[in-house]
Amino acid sequence: MKKVVTLGEIMLRFSTLEGERLSETGHLTANYGGAEANVAVSLSHFGHEAYFVSKVPDNPLGRAVERHLKSNGVQTDYLLKGGNRLGTYYLEAGVGERSAQVTYDRAYSSFSQLSPEEIDLDEVLDGAELLHISGITLALSPALRELALLAFKKAKEKGITTSFDFNYRAKLWTQQEASEAIKPLLPYADICSCGELDAVYLLGLDKEDEALPREDRLKSYYKKINEMYPDIQYIFSTFRTVLSATSNKLQGNLFTDGELYQSKVHHIEPIVDRVGGGDAFAAGILTGILDGLSAARTISFATAASALKHTIHGDCNAFSKEEVLQFATNEPGKIVR
Amino acid sequence: MKKVVTLGEIMLRFSTLEGERLSETGHLTANYGGAEANVAVSLSHFGHEAYFVSKVPDNPLGRAVERHLKSNGVQTDYLLKGGNRLGTYYLEAGVGERSAQVTYDRAYSSFSQLSPEEIDLDEVLDGAELLHISGITLALSPALRELALLAFKKAKEKGITTSFDFNYRAKLWTQQEASEAIKPLLPYADICSCGELDAVYLLGLDKEDEALPREDRLKSYYKKINEMYPDIQYIFSTFRTVLSATSNKLQGNLFTDGELYQSKVHHIEPIVDRVGGGDAFAAGILTGILDGLSAARTISFATAASALKHTIHGDCNAFSKEEVLQFATNEPGKIVR
Amino acid sequence: MKKVVTLGEIMLRFSTLEGERLSETGHLTANYGGAEANVAVSLSHFGHEAYFVSKVPDNPLGRAVERHLKSNGVQTDYLLKGGNRLGTYYLEAGVGERSAQVTYDRAYSSFSQLSPEEIDLDEVLDGAELLHISGITLALSPALRELALLAFKKAKEKGITTSFDFNYRAKLWTQQEASEAIKPLLPYADICSCGELDAVYLLGLDKEDEALPREDRLKSYYKKINEMYPDIQYIFSTFRTVLSATSNKLQGNLFTDGELYQSKVHHIEPIVDRVGGGDAFAAGILTGILDGLSAARTISFATAASALKHTIHGDCNAFSKEEVLQFATNEPGKIVR
Amino acid sequence: MKKVVTLGEIMLRFSTLEGERLSETGHLTANYGGAEANVAVSLSHFGHEAYFVSKVPDNPLGRAVERHLKSNGVQTDYLLKGGNRLGTYYLEAGVGERSAQVTYDRAYSSFSQLSPEEIDLDEVLDGAELLHISGITLALSPALRELALLAFKKAKEKGITTSFDFNYRAKLWTQQEASEAIKPLLPYADICSCGELDAVYLLGLDKEDEALPREDRLKSYYKKINEMYPDIQYIFSTFRTVLSATSNKLQGNLFTDGELYQSKVHHIEPIVDRVGGGDAFAAGILTGILDGLSAARTISFATAASALKHTIHGDCNAFSKEEVLQFATNEPGKIVR
Amino acid sequence: MKKVVTLGEIMLRFSTLEGERLSETGHLTANYGGAEANVAVSLSHFGHEAYFVSKVPDNPLGRAVERHLKSNGVQTDYLLKGGNRLGTYYLEAGVGERSAQVTYDRAYSSFSQLSPEEIDLDEVLDGAELLHISGITLALSPALRELALLAFKKAKEKGITTSFDFNYRAKLWTQQEASEAIKPLLPYADICSCGELDAVYLLGLDKEDEALPREDRLKSYYKKINEMYPDIQYIFSTFRTVLSATSNKLQGNLFTDGELYQSKVHHIEPIVDRVGGGDAFAAGILTGILDGLSAARTISFATAASALKHTIHGDCNAFSKEEVLQFATNEPGKIVR
Amino acid sequence: MKKVVTLGEIMLRFSTLEGERLSETGHLTANYGGAEANVAVSLSHFGHEAYFVSKVPDNPLGRAVERHLKSNGVQTDYLLKGGNRLGTYYLEAGVGERSAQVTYDRAYSSFSQLSPEEIDLDEVLDGAELLHISGITLALSPALRELALLAFKKAKEKGITTSFDFNYRAKLWTQQEASEAIKPLLPYADICSCGELDAVYLLGLDKEDEALPREDRLKSYYKKINEMYPDIQYIFSTFRTVLSATSNKLQGNLFTDGELYQSKVHHIEPIVDRVGGGDAFAAGILTGILDGLSAARTISFATAASALKHTIHGDCNAFSKEEVLQFATNEPGKIVR
Repeated sequence: MKKVVTLGEIMLRFSTLEGERLSETGHLTANYGGAEANVAVSLSHFGHEAYFVSKVPDNPLGRAVERHLKSNGVQTDYLLKGGNRLGTYYLEAGVGERSAQVTYDRAYSSFSQLSPEEIDLDEVLDGAELLHISGITLALSPALRELALLAFKKAKEKGITTSFDFNYRAKLWTQQEASEAIKPLLPYADICSCGELDAVYLLGLDKEDEALPREDRLKSYYKKINEMYPDIQYIFSTFRTVLSATSNKLQGNLFTDGELYQSKVHHIEPIVDRVGGGDAFAAGILTGILDGLSAARTISFATAASALKHTIHGDCNAFSKEEVLQFATNEPGKIVR
Repeated sequence: MKKVVTLGEIMLRFSTLEGERLSETGHLTANYGGAEANVAVSLSHFGHEAYFVSKVPDNPLGRAVERHLKSNGVQTDYLLKGGNRLGTYYLEAGVGERSAQVTYDRAYSSFSQLSPEEIDLDEVLDGAELLHISGITLALSPALRELALLAFKKAKEKGITTSFDFNYRAKLWTQQEASEAIKPLLPYADICSCGELDAVYLLGLDKEDEALPREDRLKSYYKKINEMYPDIQYIFSTFRTVLSATSNKLQGNLFTDGELYQSKVHHIEPIVDRVGGGDAFAAGILTGILDGLSAARTISFATAASALKHTIHGDCNAFSKEEVLQFATNEPGKIVR
Repeated sequence: MKKVVTLGEIMLRFSTLEGERLSETGHLTANYGGAEANVAVSLSHFGHEAYFVSKVPDNPLGRAVERHLKSNGVQTDYLLKGGNRLGTYYLEAGVGERSAQVTYDRAYSSFSQLSPEEIDLDEVLDGAELLHISGITLALSPALRELALLAFKKAKEKGITTSFDFNYRAKLWTQQEASEAIKPLLPYADICSCGELDAVYLLGLDKEDEALPREDRLKSYYKKINEMYPDIQYIFSTFRTVLSATSNKLQGNLFTDGELYQSKVHHIEPIVDRVGGGDAFAAGILTGILDGLSAARTISFATAASALKHTIHGDCNAFSKEEVLQFATNEPGKIVR
Repeated sequence: MKKVVTLGEIMLRFSTLEGERLSETGHLTANYGGAEANVAVSLSHFGHEAYFVSKVPDNPLGRAVERHLKSNGVQTDYLLKGGNRLGTYYLEAGVGERSAQVTYDRAYSSFSQLSPEEIDLDEVLDGAELLHISGITLALSPALRELALLAFKKAKEKGITTSFDFNYRAKLWTQQEASEAIKPLLPYADICSCGELDAVYLLGLDKEDEALPREDRLKSYYKKINEMYPDIQYIFSTFRTVLSATSNKLQGNLFTDGELYQSKVHHIEPIVDRVGGGDAFAAGILTGILDGLSAARTISFATAASALKHTIHGDCNAFSKEEVLQFATNEPGKIVR
Repeated sequence: MKKVVTLGEIMLRFSTLEGERLSETGHLTANYGGAEANVAVSLSHFGHEAYFVSKVPDNPLGRAVERHLKSNGVQTDYLLKGGNRLGTYYLEAGVGERSAQVTYDRAYSSFSQLSPEEIDLDEVLDGAELLHISGITLALSPALRELALLAFKKAKEKGITTSFDFNYRAKLWTQQEASEAIKPLLPYADICSCGELDAVYLLGLDKEDEALPREDRLKSYYKKINEMYPDIQYIFSTFRTVLSATSNKLQGNLFTDGELYQSKVHHIEPIVDRVGGGDAFAAGILTGILDGLSAARTISFATAASALKHTIHGDCNAFSKEEVLQFATNEPGKIVR
Repeated sequence: MKKVVTLGEIMLRFSTLEGERLSETGHLTANYGGAEANVAVSLSHFGHEAYFVSKVPDNPLGRAVERHLKSNGVQTDYLLKGGNRLGTYYLEAGVGERSAQVTYDRAYSSFSQLSPEEIDLDEVLDGAELLHISGITLALSPALRELALLAFKKAKEKGITTSFDFNYRAKLWTQQEASEAIKPLLPYADICSCGELDAVYLLGLDKEDEALPREDRLKSYYKKINEMYPDIQYIFSTFRTVLSATSNKLQGNLFTDGELYQSKVHHIEPIVDRVGGGDAFAAGILTGILDGLSAARTISFATAASALKHTIHGDCNAFSKEEVLQFATNEPGKIVR
């Protein structure tokens, strides 16, 4: 078991039932999640010793977070207790042509008001093989941006692999703000996600010719990124075709050693819950790299993990490595009895 | 806010959960609706001052109807209390190839036994800009047919726009009966729905050549109707392709000034609840006309409203005008966060 | 129908199911309420034209509040839209010896950040017969204290009856703070609640001899309060004996013209939901006064209303005046069929 | 297995969840029951071959009735299909001091419009040992009164034991009407229920002195009834003390051979659902008589059966004879494991 | 009504809700079913007098089985009570690409330990027109294999039609074991199911050329089987195309008199619950044969019955013959109202 | 944090909803528990490092057990995976006079077939301060009796405190069998539970005079036990008065140093779920001893912990030490807000 560390916010998500509206319902399901927490959960189920670094209030909701993490095998040694509140948000489930609607209520959360000195990075990173942070953390406060940069620098010093997931959220900050916060971090990253839009709007690359095949455009962006940040060994992303809120196509991309590896296209229908799908994908990539899978198997594994996540409620992708591998190879939908 | 008036029956609908049969279940969801009530609800959410004229028993079910209407902003000043019972019906939800099954238990309802003199049409129509009634009301009793005709005549006198939705229900009356009841009303209608089958079987038009494109046939029917009833300024309908109980295609048609305007085709899948889909459409048409939208925008708005309705449980389409407009233009199914 | 006005905060309450813990559950019921909003709801069901003055965010939760109020007949003309968030709180239901637990998450709410000039008191109070505010509003911000005082002064000028409910919440402020905020308001109050503890700890009265009968002590406090604030014509409170979270005894007290009137003792068991029980009581008192009931009938009506509230889920006491009167006189628990 | 026959109406009952109001809820539980149907269900579980004679519509609700009866082992050979509708009613569950509220919607039901010639009494009664009808059936129509009388006469001729349960329902008819309908039947009854109020208000006996012990008064009434109708061998009733909708005390009375036998007093708390409690009691009495239990054991058995019924949802008392006997003798509430 | 007899195991199935995992859920739905029991249920709803022969424990679960069968009109005269336990299994519902997962817990069940002498075959088969058993019964014990063979032989002697459904379950036994158990039975079978894989792996036929059309290959297998077992008059199977756990295509095949009859292809989407789909199909075939439908109508009826089953929860296909016929001919998904 | 070890079986419990019968329901709640597992869960929430030693199948139910334990902070290092099945049982909830009914289906479970050599007692006990086992484990197999004895002996050698809870279950073994199995263990026990019935029927003590006060009888038994087994330093039990399945009185007894300490009497009403109440009590006793509380505070703490458990669903008593202490001292049922 390898020690892996993720750092970020975890929130309470309230979801409506399918076909019900937030403004009319009296029944909400509650579950706990956040980009980096979800990655930790998946990494734990994939056989790693995952630690999640964060801060939650010292109240029943904070205890619920702790319980959620422990039930998924995530270590809570670095989960601070204190501050004002747990961030929450509301998800009105989408159906068919109607999109899901997110209503955030995350301001003033304990994590968003964390100051860097509350975290002892030496202790947190001691013995770790991987550190993972996403762009959402950077968006929450200047102090968290500072903490993330410190953590990446210290990890680099200690020879710990660093992973950064762009995770751009338009409701949290502008592209300009995101760009300025992310760029200083990338020189210290070994692994990073990056979609086409990220490449153009956050990293400022020139738009490739739309007439080119999508994978060629992507490969071109990735090569340029590699020139800019030569330490980055792996760049990953997905092509997601949104047919409707209920039906998506998903293909994974992994770029390493100058080559682009692609998974098969998963047709995900119906989508039970797409929140956490990207985090399951990232955790799959990281597991492939940590466990020394080939790039081709890594991208197949990661995309399968993400597709599986879409078929269950909640942020948490509690599938084992064996289950994902079996899913990646079996005939889809075939019952065994 | 413009005063709009609809008149009709509202019932209690009992629905089974998906995949359960009425004869085997012990759990039913209850909601309130009826063609004209649903139109009033939508018109209210679209920003009009909607009044619903009807009669319900003076018991907890009558109070539930009142509560339902008020929660959707519908004015209940002309909702009479009294009579025997609230009409009910049972809907066994359809799935895939299996159709929904409707079991009516609506006989002897308070509304079906309303006599025309209980309604003070002068008061009801005072200051109104629109009056809307559907064929279901005509089917319930001779007295209601009389009331509807009186109301249309009075509205015409007062310069109030009148709207009639055919809403033919084979379980309520024969085509012959419907035809005889509807024809006397049409000379007083400014707006009316009319599908191909209505044109042929209720208005007695000759069947157009099946080899013609569907829109051409429809246009031809509409022209003839316009000749018969020159006061009708707008005729509307939908083309609905029932792929299964779970998957439909829907396109809206609006005929005015000799031209047929069509919306894009919505692929509605999965269908959460199609009851009220036609009423949402009618309310969309009426809103386009009341608010002075172009015919093209009106039909796009109305069809989008109907498609949205199919994605939520219940008869009630509680989307605002802004939400429908956004839905009509956005990429289908795309989450915003 | 008399126009009555209440002003305060309305929140989203999340409740666990009986026998479940907040930190372990994935299912929460959501309902909307707050002291003054609940009073408005009851007053509406008791036949008054109730207006609720507040501010909620312009998002689906704000729309849910609007819907909730409208469904209960409360006028929302003075419900502002804007600000950051809707206050929320979590209620872990108590059972038997185990108390309910409240976890507040109400800081930074739209209402708590309202500034007095956002409310046009002249318009709000125009034509009103009653203004009701509770101590919770005073606890939320200095600006709200100022607004409440302005409103009470203006109401007095206009000859509008004013009502103040102490509603002391130890989680919101200290007794010292409460005392300083409440005292300036009382000279402008015509009606106020005041329990024994309020009299001693908030108004600073000397503690009466514990050996005296409870009602004698209360009467003595009330006489002194009346000397201090001669404008107060009605003082009310309840004696609540908490046998357990599931079983309470409740007796209502109303003091007017130097006399103390008491209701019968209601044995409330089981308690379905006690939140809003005090607000139902206050609304009952106000209705008795507005409708000119005798003091004895008023206190009987108010206590019955409160007892009824305890038997239903949610803050909202949707019983009509007739239902409360019938309940107050019928044999308890007897089925009619 | 002895053939026993009951004849009456069966309805669909809609119930709210505890703590919810009919006018506000969207969730109803559905179950099927009616006085005589419930007696048949109990008799079947007590080991008899029970037949239920009635008429239900030929639609999914009629099929649900059939399914309900069959699942409880009741024979449906004499369950006619046809007519307009299944009678329904709504039960808003009571809690504590708040009573349950019944809203009937049973007019025009298939059974209420049954004509006597639809039932072949010779076939129905062939080989039967018992016929049971209740006063509700008499209340529904003159034709049903006629049918009941015919059936009782024919049963007498054939030497079949006849049982009549007064079951007076004030919402169905007046005491005067009931009295006139019941009296002609009693000369043909072998067994009948009769409470104190029935004796006075329906049979016209002089009120006994309230100062006498309750059982003495009852015994006196019963002796007089026996003089009036010497064929009646068993008269039964319960003393029910309604402490609240949640808590009742229940004692059973059985009069035979000039002696009154009483069960122990059951304290039923909490009451889960009291509908059908009287029918379970009647079925217990009938089983004691059919199976030749002593009067003392019969009344103990019947009252235990009724107490058990109060602890489960639905009209149906699916306890076996063994379970009731065990319950009647065991320490209350003791778990066995 | 014709007496038909099925013999086999019935189990308690626990199912997760869609989108939930067995290892994480606290809510399971319970229903009762098993291959031969499901066939009996369908045959009963199709108008036959169906008897189910089995053994269940004498405890509440055994009583639940009895109740389930009776509610579906199945006769329980030959349902023995005794033994250790009711077999159970857990079904984690599949969604889209993710397959359903079955976890069996059926060892040591009362039925699996039945000894042949517990069943009086003469009584069971007396007056029967059909006997149906599936391969699952053979897989459970040598004693049951012996019992099945005895029953088939006796049925043959008595001129009762015999039906055998292969129902191969890889989790219960190997192909080798199945092959050895099934072959001795087939000489006594009049009707049997047999898929392509069964033909090759259980009956040892040479694999047909994959280049041939599927129906040609099947026809060839069936001809060979007919040569091997000339008494078999009907062989049936389905072509199921598993697009995903949510979407299947299904076509029925029936071979008789040297001809292969095929139904139309049903596109089943969404699949609510596919357990019992094969049993509904078998019951449809048997009903067609028992009722003397043509082979073409039989296969159309059986496939429609199976498609319907997929649209409801539970093993039990409670559709009547009329409902299936209507479904087979109606436009799919069209609502009637 | 002190290492504490418990060893025993953990099962899946299926519970009906209140007011529903197992033989009629289609909805079951699933939760995981067992005497020693529940003690470990409580000890973990009370601040100890609890290890649970057991064996569960390597399937989703085994994984669910693991998840359950981890979510409660219990270490699963010694939870073996393998064997046939997870033991299950069904609990039909009791209400009022009607008792709960337990239906066991636990035979052949993985744990019941564990052989002693599968457990490395040296590793398990290394560094532990406490070992706890209950009589249920002894009842399951001779091998488990042997394992328990070995474990107690080894613990004694290592100076680890040993605790034994009689937990006699009449459905698992006879008093004679239990007596023979328990007696050899007691010389190695430091702490043990023992009720009056245990003392008489399992340890063979002469029955004390029923005329004596209950606590005197108990004290006398405990003194004799102490003479027989001088190593036992603490003996504990509860006095439980079963008023009904919904209402119990509970008082705790702790005997040490020749003195009997008693808690106050808790009136537990309503009882939400009494399963695990005894385990919560035992964990409270053990925590008092481990943490050096006085005997008086220990028995107060333990009884409060048990009373709390009765107010929540499931076996698991997820209250912290602070919560129990607060509950033990607060006014019962008082809400804090």
